[in-house]
Amino acid sequence: MALDQPPRELARRILHKGAVGSYGLCDVELPDGQRTTLVVLAHPGAAAVVPFLDARRIVMLRQYRHAIGGVIWEIPAGKLDAGEAPELCALRELREETGYSAGRLVRSGEILTAPGFTDERIHLFCAYDLTPGSATPEPNESLELHEVELAEALAMVERGEIIDAKTIVGLMHAARAVGLRA
Amino acid sequence: MALDQPPRELARRILHKGAVGSYGLCDVELPDGQRTTLVVLAHPGAAAVVPFLDARRIVMLRQYRHAIGGVIWEIPAGKLDAGEAPELCALRELREETGYSAGRLVRSGEILTAPGFTDERIHLFCAYDLTPGSATPEPNESLELHEVELAEALAMVERGEIIDAKTIVGLMHAARAVGLRA
Repeated sequence: MALDQPPRELARRILHKGAVGSYGLCDVELPDGQRTTLVVLAHPGAAAVVPFLDARRIVMLRQYRHAIGGVIWEIPAGKLDAGEAPELCALRELREETGYSAGRLVRSGEILTAPGFTDERIHLFCAYDLTPGSATPEPNESLELHEVELAEALAMVERGEIIDAKTIVGLMHAARAVGLRA
Repeated sequence: MALDQPPRELARRILHKGAVGSYGLCDVELPDGQRTTLVVLAHPGAAAVVPFLDARRIVMLRQYRHAIGGVIWEIPAGKLDAGEAPELCALRELREETGYSAGRLVRSGEILTAPGFTDERIHLFCAYDLTPGSATPEPNESLELHEVELAEALAMVERGEIIDAKTIVGLMHAARAVGLRA
């Protein structure tokens, strides 16, 4: 199938609208006339942020994730509210999950998490000039704050201790932003 | 909610078993007695591979992805078959998508793509000593092979032209593997 002949969508059936997005099936026709059905999870998008305490130290989270049944290292992140700009989402999630308000936010990049089945796009940021405050995590969020040297976080990526995709890419962009080599 | 008191799963209802995995809802009880429902997509896992043509050049794909309605840069990758080891999956997907057989495969890391709702884990590899052959992509796969300098691929990440998460992290690990700084 050639790239300039994408499949034609015949019908899309939503099977479930939930907190993560709309899960459904797309019937598509391939250029050769064959028909097939693809699973698609339509996601609102998300923002994630590397919060700098100073030029070397960042805030990271240990977070329980039910989908994997365990605790992992992450950077603060969350889904976009309806109509919310990624920048505002990043500032809001940072405040809710860590209590910190950021005086300066710089976009560093973006990722598609799993383009084989979802359009989820996570906008990545670095946050600076932090002012502490009270965190207000959701009742079902289970997280613990840690202050980590960015260089140590990069070593944790190398050692395979940090495996969350948005966190790895966010750290890589953050390292470049402050002139540290990943 | 404390990290040492994860929610207790009361029930899990599968809403759909499809090509991507089992999509369902988990009813959980939080430590404070509150109940909530979480969306979980149980995924079989996947493997992705950076194929080295020589010390500097790699094989990359331009691939059409229906979920995002467009063409993106990726490395060869695919889901694990039932009971399949990640190494064998990496070699199989490399062969199917590019035609290349690898004489040597080295594990470079792994990612969780979206732990907020799925256990999808992509095992990352570098492949060396490639022998060309015939690609046998799935009828619904739409892809185009490109030979790219690894240094140029890293520059494409920096410029935001490569945004697929497994591809970014795979390239970062590959750069480290051959002594190139990402």
